[in-house]
Amino acid sequence: MKFNISDYISSRKEIVDKKLLDFLPESDNELTNLHESMRYSVLAGGKRLRPILCIAAAEVVGGTIEKALPVACAIEMIHTYSLIHDDLPSMDDDLFRRGKPTNHSVYGEALAILAGDALLTDAFYLIVEEGIANGLTPSLIVDVIGDISKAAGSKGMVRGQAIDLYLEGSEDVSLESSEEVHTLKTGALIEASVITGGKIGGGNDDELSRLRLYSRSLGLAFQIIDDVLDVAGGGEIGKSSGVDAKKKKVTYPGLIGVKKAKEIAWKLTEEAVLALRDFDDNSRPLREIALYLRGRRY
Amino acid sequence: MKFNISDYISSRKEIVDKKLLDFLPESDNELTNLHESMRYSVLAGGKRLRPILCIAAAEVVGGTIEKALPVACAIEMIHTYSLIHDDLPSMDDDLFRRGKPTNHSVYGEALAILAGDALLTDAFYLIVEEGIANGLTPSLIVDVIGDISKAAGSKGMVRGQAIDLYLEGSEDVSLESSEEVHTLKTGALIEASVITGGKIGGGNDDELSRLRLYSRSLGLAFQIIDDVLDVAGGGEIGKSSGVDAKKKKVTYPGLIGVKKAKEIAWKLTEEAVLALRDFDDNSRPLREIALYLRGRRY
Repeated sequence: MKFNISDYISSRKEIVDKKLLDFLPESDNELTNLHESMRYSVLAGGKRLRPILCIAAAEVVGGTIEKALPVACAIEMIHTYSLIHDDLPSMDDDLFRRGKPTNHSVYGEALAILAGDALLTDAFYLIVEEGIANGLTPSLIVDVIGDISKAAGSKGMVRGQAIDLYLEGSEDVSLESSEEVHTLKTGALIEASVITGGKIGGGNDDELSRLRLYSRSLGLAFQIIDDVLDVAGGGEIGKSSGVDAKKKKVTYPGLIGVKKAKEIAWKLTEEAVLALRDFDDNSRPLREIALYLRGRRY
Repeated sequence: MKFNISDYISSRKEIVDKKLLDFLPESDNELTNLHESMRYSVLAGGKRLRPILCIAAAEVVGGTIEKALPVACAIEMIHTYSLIHDDLPSMDDDLFRRGKPTNHSVYGEALAILAGDALLTDAFYLIVEEGIANGLTPSLIVDVIGDISKAAGSKGMVRGQAIDLYLEGSEDVSLESSEEVHTLKTGALIEASVITGGKIGGGNDDELSRLRLYSRSLGLAFQIIDDVLDVAGGGEIGKSSGVDAKKKKVTYPGLIGVKKAKEIAWKLTEEAVLALRDFDDNSRPLREIALYLRGRRY
């Protein structure tokens, strides 16, 4: 059977979207539309890159989609919370995301903050409740929660956003700072997606360290390509073209030019693929995801 | 030896404060003061009611302070995050809390949001890392994280804040809605503090259900007394007197008058104390905490 990465991604995305619908609280009582605003942002689109990576990493070491799904969905909820908060007026002040009005544009700032808070908190509850229901051992659940909370917390994703805000508009930003922002803000949760998937799938230490190498190169490549797309004005990420440049956000193309940035992304993708070389044919989805992300129209 | 509740509370508070200092990340690099702003709010005072309840509940069923401390501190971090976000301009817009400038008055809105996000996320990491280091079993850690994330999430504390915001300024609020707000916004995390403490201490099902009864009555009594203090202008909670009334917040005294509200708080405290009747003398701290909270100057 011929493997087609687009088919793979859309089939996995469908499974994730369906589960997210199941997992998110259905409706509010008459007094608040908190749950509605949580659903709005989670279901407002998105590539589902992180949950798909989590699932693919579980599969590469012999695990099942089913077992990885609760953690995969929880990671997507945490990713969504970070987008809601990043878009707030006091942060990036974005009115649109993926071509749709941002959460606070629809529900107001207060409810947007609370929707983010709730998605983050509920994500941990989901891992516990559905993890147990799915037969994950308590040790594995604890391990996974440790990885995810570390990646998302004050030394990971939140720190990346804080540094990004600090650097916004500064004239003298180094490539090292830019890499640090990307590594923390995007890379940490991408790495946690892959690693927790690998752990759920039963990967051994050697397999996990190869997955870690893969995820680190992939995460940085992914963010650089996003930056390049922003400059080039590819409509895929749903922002107006050049938005980041206008805000004087720290970006690779802004620092070293589009051509060099593309070269680095290319090289990082090669490294990601190379990290998979000792896996069997089950690593094909992870490999092709890396190539697919590089190949986005830019 | 004569038991003195003030001494008990200050000794436990000291232990908690010391541990919080240990647990909170020390310093930032030069690029952001995220960690500083997290420390600022956690160390800006506070009764440490939730961690003290967690510790006292562990002790009542035969557990040790040491074992309960990481979870007790994590709960205080979650409580602090909720205060930082509640104080934001788009929420309650408070410039002072416990007599000190609120987080966003000092660090700006963006960093205040991020400090809250980070405290919430790091709290789960703390439970995992320090829980394991403290010899809690993975099953117990998973159980505790489930309880806390449920209490703090979209069906607990965050929901309470969302409903509170929705009801603010409405003319026709029922006592039932007011109780729902209190139960979710304050009660859920207080209940989780007591229950997780009881679980860490090794409490059996019967003991845990008595602790649950205690915590529910105590949590509601505590909030009603806070409302009464706000009207009466006791300076203890550090807000200007009558702040909640000016904002048309839902309060018991606002709905049924100070006298009736006091009567209800009195009765709830009696219920809390009664729920402890089958415990031995180790239940004295929990009992006296309930009486102490009722006795705050009002």
